[in-house]
Amino acid sequence: MKKSFGAKTLAYPTPAWVIGSYDKDDKPNVMTVAWGGICCSKPPAITVSLRKATYSFASLVERKAYTVNIFSGKYVAEVDYYGIASGRDHDKFDETKLTPIQSDLVDAPYVDEAELVLECKVIQMFELGLHTQFIGEILDVKADESILDETGKPSIEKLNPIIYAPGMSNYYGIGSSLGKGYSTGMMFKKDK
Amino acid sequence: MKKSFGAKTLAYPTPAWVIGSYDKDDKPNVMTVAWGGICCSKPPAITVSLRKATYSFASLVERKAYTVNIFSGKYVAEVDYYGIASGRDHDKFDETKLTPIQSDLVDAPYVDEAELVLECKVIQMFELGLHTQFIGEILDVKADESILDETGKPSIEKLNPIIYAPGMSNYYGIGSSLGKGYSTGMMFKKDK
Repeated sequence: MKKSFGAKTLAYPTPAWVIGSYDKDDKPNVMTVAWGGICCSKPPAITVSLRKATYSFASLVERKAYTVNIFSGKYVAEVDYYGIASGRDHDKFDETKLTPIQSDLVDAPYVDEAELVLECKVIQMFELGLHTQFIGEILDVKADESILDETGKPSIEKLNPIIYAPGMSNYYGIGSSLGKGYSTGMMFKKDK
Repeated sequence: MKKSFGAKTLAYPTPAWVIGSYDKDDKPNVMTVAWGGICCSKPPAITVSLRKATYSFASLVERKAYTVNIFSGKYVAEVDYYGIASGRDHDKFDETKLTPIQSDLVDAPYVDEAELVLECKVIQMFELGLHTQFIGEILDVKADESILDETGKPSIEKLNPIIYAPGMSNYYGIGSSLGKGYSTGMMFKKDK
């Protein structure tokens, strides 16, 4: 039996991604978003949605660039803070003692301490209502050596990325493995 | 020290959402997507990206509707299968013995066994390249009573939704709580 909760933004999982950008004075800034996801394979692209009222909004519009910084659970307080304070009146890098690094590829800073970083060039913007979507072409993915597995590839288990639960407004880590993609479902396949 | 992995669709977490739709013969169909996320608060909206080559693509274009079905880990084989087989030559509901239910609100079926369901009306479509984004206005969220907490609200812990890890192509459950949103980060706040 299902209970109806009405028209609301309730879906699991959502990310807790930290968006890096430069403001009009070249000051590096970060903000946390939960509204986003990968949106295209070719070109590789990711979408993040920002309200016009945010300080980062103008930075993304003007610089046509942003980074997506994905942190492990040990940085949950920093990630939460980046969604609370505004870059308009806070230097969030300084306040949390994290380190901005200028991207070689796009006009945006990434966070040195973030274990996984995507450098993105804004290729499209779509106004949806309260939020505007920024479609970012992913020019590079950089991973900290601490999250690489024995084959040298990024591992979600080693990263233990922060997951956000809207509605409940709570952060979670990653759980145990449920099985391999394109594999566990093969039990249903009866080729004709 | 960070290692560069090039331009690719690698970000964590991504969802494993099952998209429900009707085909041209009114046959209910499902497919699994990992490219998507919430994209707007007002109107409440979610985006999912499909390749034109998928069987569901024409259904979403023609019916202007879809459902997002979010399953607990116990359905990981079904969810994986929905991303392997095509509705063009498979009746995925029948093969997996799950139950399509006609939505009252949109011209699409949802999956009765899915613990969390979003009923969506397509309000915009954006071509991005290999994938097309379908922006769906969320008209209702329905939750199974099994995932409600003691206050009667949907709980991500009770649901234990399936999380997909691109690159590794593996599914995961949800992990332990890392802290409360708009709360754990307050330690950094020094009001001026």
